Amino acid sequence: MHCFKSLENLKSAYIERIHQVSDERRSGKKSVGTFCLFVPDEIIFAAGADRMILCGGKNDTISIAEQYLPRNICPLVKSSFGSIVNDGCSGVKSCSHFSMVDMIVAENTCDSKKKMYELLDNYVPTYVIDLPQRPDTPEALKYFVTELDKFRDAMEQLTGNKVTNERLRQEIISSNETRKLLHSLYELRKRDPSPISGVDMLKILQKQYFLSPGELKEHLRMLISEVESVEPEGAHRPRIMISGCPMPGGNTKVPEIIEDKGGVIVVEESCTGTRSFWDMVDEDKEPMLALAERYIEIPCSCMSPNDRRIDNILELARDFKVDGVVYYTLQFCHGYNIEKYKVQQALKKAGIPMLFVETDYSNSDVEQIGLRVDAFMEMLS
Amino acid sequence: MHCFKSLENLKSAYIERIHQVSDERRSGKKSVGTFCLFVPDEIIFAAGADRMILCGGKNDTISIAEQYLPRNICPLVKSSFGSIVNDGCSGVKSCSHFSMVDMIVAENTCDSKKKMYELLDNYVPTYVIDLPQRPDTPEALKYFVTELDKFRDAMEQLTGNKVTNERLRQEIISSNETRKLLHSLYELRKRDPSPISGVDMLKILQKQYFLSPGELKEHLRMLISEVESVEPEGAHRPRIMISGCPMPGGNTKVPEIIEDKGGVIVVEESCTGTRSFWDMVDEDKEPMLALAERYIEIPCSCMSPNDRRIDNILELARDFKVDGVVYYTLQFCHGYNIEKYKVQQALKKAGIPMLFVETDYSNSDVEQIGLRVDAFMEMLS
Repeated sequence: MHCFKSLENLKSAYIERIHQVSDERRSGKKSVGTFCLFVPDEIIFAAGADRMILCGGKNDTISIAEQYLPRNICPLVKSSFGSIVNDGCSGVKSCSHFSMVDMIVAENTCDSKKKMYELLDNYVPTYVIDLPQRPDTPEALKYFVTELDKFRDAMEQLTGNKVTNERLRQEIISSNETRKLLHSLYELRKRDPSPISGVDMLKILQKQYFLSPGELKEHLRMLISEVESVEPEGAHRPRIMISGCPMPGGNTKVPEIIEDKGGVIVVEESCTGTRSFWDMVDEDKEPMLALAERYIEIPCSCMSPNDRRIDNILELARDFKVDGVVYYTLQFCHGYNIEKYKVQQALKKAGIPMLFVETDYSNSDVEQIGLRVDAFMEMLS
Repeated sequence: MHCFKSLENLKSAYIERIHQVSDERRSGKKSVGTFCLFVPDEIIFAAGADRMILCGGKNDTISIAEQYLPRNICPLVKSSFGSIVNDGCSGVKSCSHFSMVDMIVAENTCDSKKKMYELLDNYVPTYVIDLPQRPDTPEALKYFVTELDKFRDAMEQLTGNKVTNERLRQEIISSNETRKLLHSLYELRKRDPSPISGVDMLKILQKQYFLSPGELKEHLRMLISEVESVEPEGAHRPRIMISGCPMPGGNTKVPEIIEDKGGVIVVEESCTGTRSFWDMVDEDKEPMLALAERYIEIPCSCMSPNDRRIDNILELARDFKVDGVVYYTLQFCHGYNIEKYKVQQALKKAGIPMLFVETDYSNSDVEQIGLRVDAFMEMLS
């Protein structure tokens, strides 16, 4: 497929970002590490702190984590924990940004992350936002508002800056701009053939919470302008939605297999996909309430009921003219694994084929997944 | 060890209870099924409904559940789901009470149960109490109070009865009486040698949320009086605490192995153990607040932070003169599996040996666990 210069530029962005945060910290600016979409960036930025995502996508730090954590939990949790515990990076490469945060802002989402955060606090001060597990009651919203209020206070204490409503409003507008850019990019993927591959999209999606908002927007604008100018070429390839667990930086295994086998991913229903940017924050409401309302509705499987996710999947499948869905989960992710049943039933009813892939970060199952994806593509062609 | 007549009587109690609930339902009384200690019995009884626990401890309904649920989730969740889906019990014996409830009252505790409840609602109307995951903030308590208020309303609607503060107070006093009886029984286990085996204790603990409060108290009083009169006999056997996941009716695998190999279980730090009865509800406070305060403090691994559990384990180990701890988890129970690390560190510091056993409901690992427990006992002797 087409080769995008703006994605090539991303390669150097990692090192540049490291230097940037390093300089910021020397000048007294605080840096916060997050793991999850449920932590509103707007509050962090409004407090004048920077933010980097700490979700691990690499296999090489997992063995470090397994000295502390059970083997049979999800690779994302183990990889992240291993990267942080391995602070100095001795023996394992490319984990440098994991040691560059003054505070971790965690959230009670799934069992493994929740309990992992307790251990993490021994290495980096870890602030935990409690999250109601219901997205649909006024009481849950109220509780979430109070939790976000406390988080705002904690950020004020960390940075020494006041988080004013005006600052929050500015950050909400800025984040909505990013969301709109991502919507524009996704809009282009509705073309057939899609002008950009899923593997390419993942490159920028994985940097979404790593880059500064300004840099991200710049990269997105460049990419949109490049993708817009791509001339449609080639035959129709099966248009795939990938739905389920996130794919943090370092993990591109399954998208690569799907596109090697002749499919093209046109939409990702995941935290490294639509869940991160789909909904806007209301710019006209009281900011803290607007943030709580928007974030509590993220259709993560940690929420119950989560019918909004099913509806969203069906809507995306229709809008992006999806031929088939690869339901992707990380091993031992109970939430997305159990929710598979409901998604499968809904897709069956809508006549959309689905392939289930449960995997980890190792390469041991690449051949086996390849064979299964191959058969799925044959069926869709 | 001694043979207790009151435990022999429990054998017929199952059938008697089935008849009792069946008669009650015919006369219009509602029956509620629960899965977890976090659901306050007091509210159910104050509404004039009956209650039976639906946690599955048997292996034979797991294959039924695996048609809907992933294989790699905890056996308790699968066994329970299989028993309920298998409503009519065709082909699988002794699951009759699972089909005898008008409503399930569930709670958002762990990932697997939370998502399983969504599917369960297709079979039995399922009401879910959302649970904050922090036990230690005023905001979490407030949210839990509102959730319990809504639950009380739901029970009023189900039964048509008003849940008055007076009825709640009566039920609180009654439940506290049961808790005190269990404390008395545990007090007797502090003797060396312990007058009752862990396997025997489990027989009554597993019936705790199955029998009516009146029957349970009667059985407990009989058992206490029998255990009190046991003459100390035999040599010292390693005094074991079992700590971790619950063991619902049908699952006695690991306690049997421990006591076959020469140990004696003197205390269970689990939901089928101390967690169910350790703390009293304050009888002098406003009842709904008193309930929320007591229940939110149950030291389940779904709570974060859960240092209270570590403190409790150390206290129990001291008070019950424990020689060693068997840390028992059900396969894929992320909460208790990850929390193992903190417990292990605390026990190490206190100089108390620990053996970790992760298992399911099958018999395939009985020999292997036996060998490991044998070595552990040898070390303790």
